[in-house]
Amino acid sequence: MNFSKFGQKFTQPTGISQLMDDLGDALKSDQPVNMLGGGNPARIEAVNELFLQTYQALGSDGIFDKKGSDKEAADGTASTAITSMSNYSNPQGDAAFIDALVGFFNRHYDWNLSADNIALTNGSQNAFFYLFNLFGGAFTDEQNQSIDKSILLPLAPEYIGYSDVHVDGQHFAAVLPHIDEVTHDGEAGFFKYRVDFEALENLPALVEGRIGAICCSRPTNPTGNVLTDEEMSRLADIAKRYEVPLIIDNAYGMPFPNIIYSDAHLNWDTNTILCFSLSKIGLPGVRTGIIVAAPEVISAVSSMNAVVNLAPTRFGAALATPLVKDDRIKQLSDEAIKPFYQQQANTAVRLLKEALGDYPLSIHKPEGAIFLWLWFKDLPVTTLELYEILKEKGTLIVPSQYFFPGIDVDNYKHAHECIRMSIAADEQTLIDGIKVIGDVVRELYDKSLVK
Amino acid sequence: MNFSKFGQKFTQPTGISQLMDDLGDALKSDQPVNMLGGGNPARIEAVNELFLQTYQALGSDGIFDKKGSDKEAADGTASTAITSMSNYSNPQGDAAFIDALVGFFNRHYDWNLSADNIALTNGSQNAFFYLFNLFGGAFTDEQNQSIDKSILLPLAPEYIGYSDVHVDGQHFAAVLPHIDEVTHDGEAGFFKYRVDFEALENLPALVEGRIGAICCSRPTNPTGNVLTDEEMSRLADIAKRYEVPLIIDNAYGMPFPNIIYSDAHLNWDTNTILCFSLSKIGLPGVRTGIIVAAPEVISAVSSMNAVVNLAPTRFGAALATPLVKDDRIKQLSDEAIKPFYQQQANTAVRLLKEALGDYPLSIHKPEGAIFLWLWFKDLPVTTLELYEILKEKGTLIVPSQYFFPGIDVDNYKHAHECIRMSIAADEQTLIDGIKVIGDVVRELYDKSLVK
Repeated sequence: MNFSKFGQKFTQPTGISQLMDDLGDALKSDQPVNMLGGGNPARIEAVNELFLQTYQALGSDGIFDKKGSDKEAADGTASTAITSMSNYSNPQGDAAFIDALVGFFNRHYDWNLSADNIALTNGSQNAFFYLFNLFGGAFTDEQNQSIDKSILLPLAPEYIGYSDVHVDGQHFAAVLPHIDEVTHDGEAGFFKYRVDFEALENLPALVEGRIGAICCSRPTNPTGNVLTDEEMSRLADIAKRYEVPLIIDNAYGMPFPNIIYSDAHLNWDTNTILCFSLSKIGLPGVRTGIIVAAPEVISAVSSMNAVVNLAPTRFGAALATPLVKDDRIKQLSDEAIKPFYQQQANTAVRLLKEALGDYPLSIHKPEGAIFLWLWFKDLPVTTLELYEILKEKGTLIVPSQYFFPGIDVDNYKHAHECIRMSIAADEQTLIDGIKVIGDVVRELYDKSLVK
Repeated sequence: MNFSKFGQKFTQPTGISQLMDDLGDALKSDQPVNMLGGGNPARIEAVNELFLQTYQALGSDGIFDKKGSDKEAADGTASTAITSMSNYSNPQGDAAFIDALVGFFNRHYDWNLSADNIALTNGSQNAFFYLFNLFGGAFTDEQNQSIDKSILLPLAPEYIGYSDVHVDGQHFAAVLPHIDEVTHDGEAGFFKYRVDFEALENLPALVEGRIGAICCSRPTNPTGNVLTDEEMSRLADIAKRYEVPLIIDNAYGMPFPNIIYSDAHLNWDTNTILCFSLSKIGLPGVRTGIIVAAPEVISAVSSMNAVVNLAPTRFGAALATPLVKDDRIKQLSDEAIKPFYQQQANTAVRLLKEALGDYPLSIHKPEGAIFLWLWFKDLPVTTLELYEILKEKGTLIVPSQYFFPGIDVDNYKHAHECIRMSIAADEQTLIDGIKVIGDVVRELYDKSLVK
């Protein structure tokens, strides 16, 4: 069959698609695999218990409880579960959940939101498909000329999933980081990426009006970096100066799932587009993303929802509504989710130091998210090659070169020296996986010294 | 904020978006509305009971039942509900549901499918967003020249939701119907659309290789027409001759929800792309679409899922899996859903004949789907104007002019003389709504005769 150019863009095999297939195949395989490669959140007992309890309540509330969230449930004849399954929401998303979110955010922040500031999407990836096509690609300028604009990623590396979302070509500009040696819990062997503001402010694309939006994930997937409040404030200023929105991918951030250990605050104004997700509180299967933005952005997202999906899926919204209404989503994040990942990060760091303490391993300071980012300086092979060796031995990680959308990594050595390692696995998998990584990496360094 | 051209396409107000807003506002309004305008399926007690029972079972099976559908449930430690919420599926969609569908289709048809023939999407609209961009828009031909191809709709009117799905422009070619006067249950006052094969086979775009796929909905939304087996067979032949796929939008068709009253059969081969949905069995809120196609199409759809949505939502899949496994989905369709809508169609036809029997109303022969399509021949106003008058009186329908993607309706009078009326409402709403339609239409015709 003949596919359009659009179709060919999406069907030509890429390194990333090969990698994703590897991860998928590994999960389906009967052979034991140390899965440190994917982005699935951890299984946390307290989290699953609360979700199951909520799930069960949604299946019986309408029958007993006359105070349901809509007309049907109010009749006492249909449970919230049935009402949510058996009706489309409007394209903006489940109205009861949006109302609950407005209340929640206004309770915890001084953002003064209304329902016109929130739209739902089928997960965060879906939100970025919309936003990056809304603010990147072909524009018409004031003289009615066509102009190509990019999404500016102020701090590479960034999320792998951004790379392919443009409907036509790729439209990213990215700035390489400053790499600072830092300590972590008083120990050496860590580094932290910082925005190179001088390079950023002098970027020709920015200065010449060829940037459509600025975007960062915070905490950053893949590095676990958390941009400081000062960095965020400077980015917000630059975005305002150039009259483009600042998009913040807050999938791992405050106030839920709140997988963030550094001292950081969350701000929003009408030039900011804040993206939340239910995935990392433990609900990736429900595919629910939340966008908080100015009404004109929400209206555009709703229109795109209508065309691409008719309306967003409702089950995640139904499940999260009671937890947002009474702040249990925040309590769960603060008391179960955040401490769990912090513990996992500590364990993984300890195991890595034990395995590779005498070798040139440096770890990005763990400030949040569910990954560690490891830098094997002067490793004699690329981490794509390392990935292949580790895969052969049943341990999966993700090599760094795919995390640089907007950068030509051919001549950037650092982009071939790092790996992303998930810390969401159980402790035994961390132990087994890090043992394999340690053995392989030591051998690689040792061999190269022999030469 | 400045939006890209892509963004502007999706954000400029259109007649359709205005209409959708009207329908949405009406649902939110406190004033009583006779809602005959939307596409929400009916509330059927037997259907909701089965879904609620299944929902509750999914929330408790893992605890008691060791034979769960995956590793976690098999441990007896997590219910299917939790497993489905707390894990991504791969981009192709929930593997357990795909396996159940393979078994189901191979049990009922001789299609000899494997899991490589099925992908899931976030509802049918999402499937058509993918497919129409995969087979319509800019192509590269054998001489490496750019060529624009359209989706051929062999029988206008067609589904309103197709109109805007192309990422750049509109790419449809459509053929106007033959309109045959027919009887229905022995009564006159009905018509049926038939494919004008002579016009179709001589269509310049088809003959000149500017068609990327042929597509029809069967039963058709908005008309309730069911293309005959002979028509389908001829369309399949034409598609093969021109080496383009035949896409069938089977959202209302066999074997579920099976809202189809004429004698019709469902065929599939590797040149056919069959699209199913869980919406019209009563689950529109779960947003689950199913594509059955050749592996290269499934692979392309999976890639698009990865980029646009990361992975499809899983809750609808989890809910439907047990019903597909033991054929209850078919039993429910045959015994509850199909008879319900057939009864509704009969009631609506009777009420319409009572209200407008002496006026030039003709009804498209009700052969399936959840709508009636009414033709007010020589009505002195367009049905867009009729829509506005009815809206003022609290009755919502959809005027016909939006159901002709690929046709310039300015000079096609018939496209301004019809309305789509949902029959999914309860009986009192049908009675009240049809009374208003009758009063208004009679007055319009009477006035014009006075002139």
